Amino acid sequence: MIHVTRRYRFSASHRLHAAPLSESANRELYGKCNNPYGHGHNYVLEVSVRGPMEARSGSAVNAAALDRLVTDHVIGAFDHKNLNTQVPGFAAVVPTTENMALEVQKRLHSHWHTAFPGAWPKLEKIRIYETRRNVVELATSSPTE
Amino acid sequence: MIHVTRRYRFSASHRLHAAPLSESANRELYGKCNNPYGHGHNYVLEVSVRGPMEARSGSAVNAAALDRLVTDHVIGAFDHKNLNTQVPGFAAVVPTTENMALEVQKRLHSHWHTAFPGAWPKLEKIRIYETRRNVVELATSSPTE
Amino acid sequence: MIHVTRRYRFSASHRLHAAPLSESANRELYGKCNNPYGHGHNYVLEVSVRGPMEARSGSAVNAAALDRLVTDHVIGAFDHKNLNTQVPGFAAVVPTTENMALEVQKRLHSHWHTAFPGAWPKLEKIRIYETRRNVVELATSSPTE
Amino acid sequence: MIHVTRRYRFSASHRLHAAPLSESANRELYGKCNNPYGHGHNYVLEVSVRGPMEARSGSAVNAAALDRLVTDHVIGAFDHKNLNTQVPGFAAVVPTTENMALEVQKRLHSHWHTAFPGAWPKLEKIRIYETRRNVVELATSSPTE
Amino acid sequence: MIHVTRRYRFSASHRLHAAPLSESANRELYGKCNNPYGHGHNYVLEVSVRGPMEARSGSAVNAAALDRLVTDHVIGAFDHKNLNTQVPGFAAVVPTTENMALEVQKRLHSHWHTAFPGAWPKLEKIRIYETRRNVVELATSSPTE
Amino acid sequence: MIHVTRRYRFSASHRLHAAPLSESANRELYGKCNNPYGHGHNYVLEVSVRGPMEARSGSAVNAAALDRLVTDHVIGAFDHKNLNTQVPGFAAVVPTTENMALEVQKRLHSHWHTAFPGAWPKLEKIRIYETRRNVVELATSSPTE
Repeated sequence: MIHVTRRYRFSASHRLHAAPLSESANRELYGKCNNPYGHGHNYVLEVSVRGPMEARSGSAVNAAALDRLVTDHVIGAFDHKNLNTQVPGFAAVVPTTENMALEVQKRLHSHWHTAFPGAWPKLEKIRIYETRRNVVELATSSPTE
Repeated sequence: MIHVTRRYRFSASHRLHAAPLSESANRELYGKCNNPYGHGHNYVLEVSVRGPMEARSGSAVNAAALDRLVTDHVIGAFDHKNLNTQVPGFAAVVPTTENMALEVQKRLHSHWHTAFPGAWPKLEKIRIYETRRNVVELATSSPTE
Repeated sequence: MIHVTRRYRFSASHRLHAAPLSESANRELYGKCNNPYGHGHNYVLEVSVRGPMEARSGSAVNAAALDRLVTDHVIGAFDHKNLNTQVPGFAAVVPTTENMALEVQKRLHSHWHTAFPGAWPKLEKIRIYETRRNVVELATSSPTE
Repeated sequence: MIHVTRRYRFSASHRLHAAPLSESANRELYGKCNNPYGHGHNYVLEVSVRGPMEARSGSAVNAAALDRLVTDHVIGAFDHKNLNTQVPGFAAVVPTTENMALEVQKRLHSHWHTAFPGAWPKLEKIRIYETRRNVVELATSSPTE
Repeated sequence: MIHVTRRYRFSASHRLHAAPLSESANRELYGKCNNPYGHGHNYVLEVSVRGPMEARSGSAVNAAALDRLVTDHVIGAFDHKNLNTQVPGFAAVVPTTENMALEVQKRLHSHWHTAFPGAWPKLEKIRIYETRRNVVELATSSPTE
Repeated sequence: MIHVTRRYRFSASHRLHAAPLSESANRELYGKCNNPYGHGHNYVLEVSVRGPMEARSGSAVNAAALDRLVTDHVIGAFDHKNLNTQVPGFAAVVPTTENMALEVQKRLHSHWHTAFPGAWPKLEKIRIYETRRNVVELATSSPTE
């Protein structure tokens, strides 16, 4: 079994604010990330997949297909956007790095079988770096598992 | 003469939009950076100063004084902020990386003599990385030169 | 289950020397790290924790609490210090990167429940980079497991 | 159990071309990596091993022995080489990053017991970065397991 | 005056061999880079330009125009290529990093006025990283200067 | 004229303490770097030289000769050492990054003509990174200039 990780970048803005909570509870919870006017980051997204070696091609994943999937359904939707306002998944969900990883997972799941009609590769891990100091990782699985 | 460079980080959001221009001229000029809802970056700011060796201390710049100056007057004002809305200098000026370098210079000049009352060190260079791929540099000078 | 990794930096000096061994055995074992006058590194420490999503806040770990725990009990004790002389845990234990990971684990365990009184998050992994070329990782667990 | 990762670098050239396939199938499969004249990369190789702490030395792996093993049998054979032409293992096997990881594993297995005659450490993981954007990882095991 | 640097990447292979010299002189001169079958690198190219602020747009260079120029005339020609065989400028010239910088300069000069018909920006500096350890820089000038 | 920069690494410990000053003046001047037991860093040293193209070899500097010079006279003397105790130049001089740059310059000057008997290349710049955040640069010149 081989594991392949591809790395992507996007820049976006967001504001962390939980609507059900009071102003002061939000400030305490999110600190300066609660700034009402928003701020932003250069995010790094790593998508890891696993699969058996395909002997003829010597590869475990069609990298071009993975790039197309991630670019079309994640990077295209997030890059140079305001996540709160312009990504429907964050209309009622706070765009923390954790929720961003779940949103990426949902988007990859929805389109996985179109990109990879066969049994392999499987989606394995989603990792988002908000800054060098803060990384969130989601062990995931392919939609049919 | 010794040159010392200190590196700082901040995360902010902005929108590039020149008010005097039409919507379509703005879109052509700034591309996806013109997105009306804004986007953001993890910026890196490098401030370079120069001065003669101070023999007793073996240093050319009081690093603590420089850190205080930059933190109080630049990082504190830019970090986790929406540049267009929350930094007065960008109320009527597009917050491109170029204009950000000029704004940093203005702020450092205003407070330079408070931080460094003597003849040295001199401010020499301001460099801002918006992403790894885009860097702006401003050869500058101390306010009295 | 979400995994969150936070990254910290500290600079310290150390000498690798096992008291029970002869001078020549020490030299062979540790090479230039056995230099009697010590040397030093810019260490990177990564602490990984895991926990379920806390739906309201959209986060799996209180990052501020983790930062406080690690800063107060590890970074504050190690940064700009001579590990052999100034960290009690290395009075009789060689400060190799491996032993440093165990010491970090011990310190985080001792104060874990004060920082995180609830069932989650759990401490998961400690990783120390001595240089870019040498990394030690310790799969760990929370004190109550 | 402690995990230790050591990082190595080498520069090499290769061409991705599967002999049994047609010219056009190769072009579609490998894209610009199928260029008949080859191209190259600065590869990063990470080798991870695990073992119990050896109390006396405070280490889990003899780093010098690992460096010698990897340098003699991998880096020496791959660095500044044309992989297709000069590494026998790629005479009939396409030098994709996946196959390179398998070749590294085979080479480390062949010489493992000479380098590490005892029960520990075990080889655990081989990771190759072709570029920052493309990483292949092979969970492996020591030859006797 | 503002200085803007844009960063690009390409992967290529080459062999260092000066035809007028003997085999042994070549081996001594270029070491393992003289390997007859070639090897390769992930190169980083930085192009620096300078110009006055254009007040309306708040920028000193049309980044899209620079990217197009560099991509069309350098990256497109060098990426995933064998430099000796596939880049005409290296048919009779050894593709050292130094000569590569001169070739990049020649290519940018040839097409500069098409990309930038006005007086500004000027081409200022070309920097090529062959590896992290080896960097070549060429202070240059625009074709008309 | 071509500029070539080569990058080297070394790990060392030091203590910042100016003997003529009082304990409290030292503490105020150097902060935690004044810790009496010392601390350490992974330093990066960049040496830049310039010279005309040597047409036959396509290079401006004999990189192997430069590496030998820097390794023999700087890295070998500084790496895995206590700078205050083991480098004679710092017996009476505080090993700040600024003084380290001057010491590197002195050492390169002393041996320059042995390494480079001809008119070129010239030593141009010495840059030392103590951490990612603190960089000192010395514009220098060859000993005969």
